[in-house]
Amino acid sequence: MRAVDIIEKKRDGHALSADEIRFFIEGYTQDTIPDYQAAALLMAIYWHGMTREETVALTMSMAESGHMMDLSDITSYAVDKHSSGGVGDKTTLVVLPLVASVGVPVAKMSGRGLGFSGGTLDKLESIAGYDVNLSDERFRELAKKNGIVLSGQTGELAPADGKLYALRDVTATVSCTPLIASSIMSKKLASGAHGMVLDVKWGNGAFMQTLDDAHELAEIMVQIGKDAGRDVIALLSNMNQPLGYAVGNALEVVEAIETLHGGGPQDLREHCLEVARYMLQLAGRGEKWTDEAEVDALLKAQLSNDQAFKVFRQMVAAQGGDVRMVDDPSLLPQSKIQEDILAARGGTVSEVVALEIAQAANILGAGRAKKGDPVDHAVGIVVHVKVGDDIEAGQPLLTLYANHASQLEEAKQTVRDAISISQEKSEPLPLFNGLVDSRTL
Amino acid sequence: MRAVDIIEKKRDGHALSADEIRFFIEGYTQDTIPDYQAAALLMAIYWHGMTREETVALTMSMAESGHMMDLSDITSYAVDKHSSGGVGDKTTLVVLPLVASVGVPVAKMSGRGLGFSGGTLDKLESIAGYDVNLSDERFRELAKKNGIVLSGQTGELAPADGKLYALRDVTATVSCTPLIASSIMSKKLASGAHGMVLDVKWGNGAFMQTLDDAHELAEIMVQIGKDAGRDVIALLSNMNQPLGYAVGNALEVVEAIETLHGGGPQDLREHCLEVARYMLQLAGRGEKWTDEAEVDALLKAQLSNDQAFKVFRQMVAAQGGDVRMVDDPSLLPQSKIQEDILAARGGTVSEVVALEIAQAANILGAGRAKKGDPVDHAVGIVVHVKVGDDIEAGQPLLTLYANHASQLEEAKQTVRDAISISQEKSEPLPLFNGLVDSRTL
Repeated sequence: MRAVDIIEKKRDGHALSADEIRFFIEGYTQDTIPDYQAAALLMAIYWHGMTREETVALTMSMAESGHMMDLSDITSYAVDKHSSGGVGDKTTLVVLPLVASVGVPVAKMSGRGLGFSGGTLDKLESIAGYDVNLSDERFRELAKKNGIVLSGQTGELAPADGKLYALRDVTATVSCTPLIASSIMSKKLASGAHGMVLDVKWGNGAFMQTLDDAHELAEIMVQIGKDAGRDVIALLSNMNQPLGYAVGNALEVVEAIETLHGGGPQDLREHCLEVARYMLQLAGRGEKWTDEAEVDALLKAQLSNDQAFKVFRQMVAAQGGDVRMVDDPSLLPQSKIQEDILAARGGTVSEVVALEIAQAANILGAGRAKKGDPVDHAVGIVVHVKVGDDIEAGQPLLTLYANHASQLEEAKQTVRDAISISQEKSEPLPLFNGLVDSRTL
Repeated sequence: MRAVDIIEKKRDGHALSADEIRFFIEGYTQDTIPDYQAAALLMAIYWHGMTREETVALTMSMAESGHMMDLSDITSYAVDKHSSGGVGDKTTLVVLPLVASVGVPVAKMSGRGLGFSGGTLDKLESIAGYDVNLSDERFRELAKKNGIVLSGQTGELAPADGKLYALRDVTATVSCTPLIASSIMSKKLASGAHGMVLDVKWGNGAFMQTLDDAHELAEIMVQIGKDAGRDVIALLSNMNQPLGYAVGNALEVVEAIETLHGGGPQDLREHCLEVARYMLQLAGRGEKWTDEAEVDALLKAQLSNDQAFKVFRQMVAAQGGDVRMVDDPSLLPQSKIQEDILAARGGTVSEVVALEIAQAANILGAGRAKKGDPVDHAVGIVVHVKVGDDIEAGQPLLTLYANHASQLEEAKQTVRDAISISQEKSEPLPLFNGLVDSRTL
């Protein structure tokens, strides 16, 4: 088998066999197939797309290019969640302890923020001492002992995906649905989950701009999971305004803690309850947690009775974090400057552009433009309004948390038009726009 | 300007500007744009094609990526010829001395054989001592002094094309007409010719399999030349059977010398006269050599009165070649074994598959599979028949010239079905199938 023949076959619009895909991915992982041949293949895939069978084969080959986690000694059925990336998305910080608090073990590996999209690891590191770099042994030990662990990757999960992702970034082959789907799913399959809830976001603060694109991505990912023998529920969620109010690492941890205490923004709470409910549904495997209303009540109770918070606190302690910051979030990193942006006039909020909020937060130092850049945990933005809210002139719309006056000024320019006030009524945005479920596909 | 944005633009089917193409080619030549980005762009070009303007810009950028020859101190109007590559194509060996013999200076750089396609340099090196590696100074000196020089490239002509060609070979982006056209034309433009005759071959012994493909390639090359201010005549010629009888380096030199003496195979003689006539037409610039019949008579006379041969002999002597071999071609390298393949039955020759003849000649050692392989100058095949010839059983169809018995056996297997004998009449193949002329485009 020769790489050039595989490129030619795809170039001519033919579907590749699983063997050809495996040969290419193995060769690329082992550096016997060079970047330039992978680049040509990627562009041919961008051109012709991939069949479901090809996408599954690509995903499995990438998953198997490195260490495949096996969680069977921890639970007979591991559940996981994944977000396709958004603005103000601190769901994992709430959902993981919530699910664990009812006895479902969760062992999750998260990522860092890049571009407009925040990262769970950066948020957790707002808590002094919190260790996201666990060894494989320590990761398993905590999962077994506490039923919860949340860190970065313990080993090289799906290294082929890492290489291909970097290559796609510089060859204009990122925005290709089968490649996006296989990239996400290869890591999920390698992480050993049997069931997973995917939060597929769409809108101006998401990678997928339209609901249609998000739906297509969701379907492909669910198909991959199903063909790989996993249960996958993909929720389509609206990312045209930030989730919750806070955007920025420590600010989001504060909001997550409020939510774990039974409070927090309504949209965030509802979002987390929905994700958690589906995780329990999967974990129950038709034997438990089948009654939606009952599960909802159970999960709400776990928030209001502080059980979920206690699990979060236990997780932070187990991973070396300073629990005083969890008990008293005012101890989390604080920015030097806070400045409110007030409404110039009254009316109804018709738009909160998530992307512009994220860009402003990044200008303040909350995010990173490229891998390896440092982040400032203290800074960010709190958005006080949601689409559909009635507001009065002079009411605060945003609070900017900054450490440098120059960054504050630039961020203020960036958010200038992020919030639109209309004299007509606007409906609140729906949180979800449907789902795709492998069990009923 | 960023390479990735240029790739993205082409990926989305937009035409690139001349500036963008120049930026990319300059960056690629200087290694600031890596192979993998060039590979992605090549595949996007393969996908979407290129407009005439893009193809011209690509060709000019590649031409200007290295040394641009200036022949204005040798002639006010330099003419050149180029063949797209075929089997048994020794046209240059005849046409160059022929044209030079009537006073038109010719300073040509040729290439080596690769795959099924022979190379003029390999043929010339059958003559002991012939030096194809001239310095730029020596090349110019000989052109000025003798009005004829024929060597390999004196400097790095169109280095971007060299890099891109190697990359195309391993990324399944060879068979793309604008890329083929710009590759050929970039070297021609860099070589300083004002007018050129392109011999664009089609058929089973050519890169272009169909006349339509060859016509498309011819049109694009003529357009490039026209837009670059050059005169270009592209002849479409049939390469379904070898040109002349001989395939193999020394065997072809023998045949070229016979043709220069006024003999040789009829098809080769006519082919050379046609190419030479158009070269003179270009060189005459409407002031000389305008009468087709007159030019034809002149050129035929230059062959039959040995004037063309004398120029060839002078060229060989000037470039260090052993003229005794030119005077007595039996002194050229001879193979140890000669074996005739006889017709099993009588009839009319309906097919002589040029590709299979070339493959067999390569098995005997006449060609090379990859750059840098050595060639055996003595070996090859002489095809004694042409499509349309009536033959009798037992008549020799081919003579194989071999140096190793094992190669001979393999070559015999390869040519087994190369010649088809039919009981029905076949028409001889036409030599040419039209032309494209920049002066009337």
